[in-house]
Amino acid sequence: MIERHHTGPRMSQIVKHNGTVYLAGQVGHGDSVAEQTRDCLAQVDKLLEEAGSDRAHILQAIIWLADLDRDFAAMNEVWDAWVPQGHTPARAAGEARLATPDYLVEVIVTAAIKG
Amino acid sequence: MIERHHTGPRMSQIVKHNGTVYLAGQVGHGDSVAEQTRDCLAQVDKLLEEAGSDRAHILQAIIWLADLDRDFAAMNEVWDAWVPQGHTPARAAGEARLATPDYLVEVIVTAAIKG
Amino acid sequence: MIERHHTGPRMSQIVKHNGTVYLAGQVGHGDSVAEQTRDCLAQVDKLLEEAGSDRAHILQAIIWLADLDRDFAAMNEVWDAWVPQGHTPARAAGEARLATPDYLVEVIVTAAIKG
Repeated sequence: MIERHHTGPRMSQIVKHNGTVYLAGQVGHGDSVAEQTRDCLAQVDKLLEEAGSDRAHILQAIIWLADLDRDFAAMNEVWDAWVPQGHTPARAAGEARLATPDYLVEVIVTAAIKG
Repeated sequence: MIERHHTGPRMSQIVKHNGTVYLAGQVGHGDSVAEQTRDCLAQVDKLLEEAGSDRAHILQAIIWLADLDRDFAAMNEVWDAWVPQGHTPARAAGEARLATPDYLVEVIVTAAIKG
Repeated sequence: MIERHHTGPRMSQIVKHNGTVYLAGQVGHGDSVAEQTRDCLAQVDKLLEEAGSDRAHILQAIIWLADLDRDFAAMNEVWDAWVPQGHTPARAAGEARLATPDYLVEVIVTAAIKG
């Protein structure tokens, strides 16, 4: 049984299956990578709550940065303050240009549903 | 129990486990990104059918474009016509050069097995 | 129930849930992509063993190369010798700059837990 939320014509923001939730790649608004990461992770929080999960239940996070050299440290600072200590996910971060040049960071989250 | 199909020396095209199917990254042939996306998604259809799934059961799709600025709109046009409305997956799209310069698009699909 | 191992302040190296294990993106040391790939895959072996899995139980591998044109063949040579024939995973490989310029290859592994 698959459950989808915020299902648009191109993608769903939330897809639940077999105790696991897959989020669409999340981006954020703001002029700096720090602002965008904060906004993006706030969106992740909101979607995970709606899916019956939360940031302590993230299994895997893949992070894309448009300019890794420039923005890696600033993204990590926001990330490190956000991830719950003792419950950090498997993570990978690499450089990839994103859907529009305004976007500096995108996070792809797979999480466990609580219960 | 893991079930693999089209198992070559480097990778399997289909790997099934625990109600979920993982496809190898699919590319397509053709001179334009539209042709390649169509060919690639036709291959996804074929593999999903063989795996006991289909395009309405995709959980997550990660799309890599070799030239995102140039090809994002054309890829999306093919994608939007292909994804079944009401059943769109979680999706992320970013830029990455691919295995050969001829390839313009690659799609990495995780889907639920029908049941 | 989620089980995490090697849980640092930023990420866990191993996250287990529902019969599946997610590893953090693994990199390796060495001057060439061949050395780094060997070192990286040895690390994957070690983590999978600790998680109750092994290289014959990998479901999906996503490989990032910092310079795909230059390093694809050399990475594949090491990969092809390492993957157990008859049990190769779904795989995708693309180009992405990595966390530091020294890193030439990163592998993101999802595997089944033996049982």
